[in-house]
Amino acid sequence: MKFEIENAVAVLSATPGTLRALLGGLSDGWTSSSDNSDSWQAFDVVGHLIHGEETDWIPRARIILEQGENRTFVPFDRFAQFDNSKGKSLSDLLAEFEEARAKSLSELQSWNLTDEQLELKGMHPELGEVTLGQLLATWVVHDLNHIRQIATAMARRYDAEVGPWKEYLSILK
Amino acid sequence: MKFEIENAVAVLSATPGTLRALLGGLSDGWTSSSDNSDSWQAFDVVGHLIHGEETDWIPRARIILEQGENRTFVPFDRFAQFDNSKGKSLSDLLAEFEEARAKSLSELQSWNLTDEQLELKGMHPELGEVTLGQLLATWVVHDLNHIRQIATAMARRYDAEVGPWKEYLSILK
Repeated sequence: MKFEIENAVAVLSATPGTLRALLGGLSDGWTSSSDNSDSWQAFDVVGHLIHGEETDWIPRARIILEQGENRTFVPFDRFAQFDNSKGKSLSDLLAEFEEARAKSLSELQSWNLTDEQLELKGMHPELGEVTLGQLLATWVVHDLNHIRQIATAMARRYDAEVGPWKEYLSILK
Repeated sequence: MKFEIENAVAVLSATPGTLRALLGGLSDGWTSSSDNSDSWQAFDVVGHLIHGEETDWIPRARIILEQGENRTFVPFDRFAQFDNSKGKSLSDLLAEFEEARAKSLSELQSWNLTDEQLELKGMHPELGEVTLGQLLATWVVHDLNHIRQIATAMARRYDAEVGPWKEYLSILK
């Protein structure tokens, strides 16, 4: 499927509502932080998504669009949420993410990007040259990756409860 | 996490809204059926979930609760949706699933199940003896498994669009 802004924005706009529908009515038993950077839970993931809005996607897109002398992105802190989310509730984080995402998409749409601009390049600190289109496609896939991660983390809490059915449930493997 | 009806119902109730939030605003480009039983897309998964409401979870729970002479479940048809969903839109399927799930949960809650009833057994045609509690926990994990599957199928449509970032995106592996 070829990258198109409109299709990408459709998924990016849907994510805050998806997370609210999935998580908004659940007890902490399903969502609480693991305080373990190797096994993120819903609470950790929503914090990570907020940090991405603030420091990753739109800031990197700006660097590319400016085409300044230094087009190398600031490395993204994948663990910032373990500090940033302290003392907050999941409900706080869901609201914060919703607001941050709306702001990001409003800026993105104000740019009215052309196909030529989607080919502009920036420099990833580890991956090397990347285009604006690739950055925006990655933003979409990153959302889906983390929806998947939340579903997986929740499912694992019932690992022992499904009994013999575990064999059929790929999410528990 | 120990199985408790209330926590299970919280997830099961959230699934129709989660799917509507995730998929309701997307073009067919993201969700259309693959017509390939090896690689389910969002359209296929929602059809599969509807079939589960009609023939799997509550019907099997009834068999266990009745404790009749034959407690062997009718095998579940994992491919029924490829016929059943023909001619329907994703929007039709989302509405149908929402209604079917509400009906299932209304029946489940009318039973006011006790801890003793959760230990009652039925016979799975392949897995052997299983309890009602295991069946209901599996229903929850099955929902999460399919949310995960939808996210994965969508992400793969951008497999080539993310460029070098693919390396970082576990959902594309």
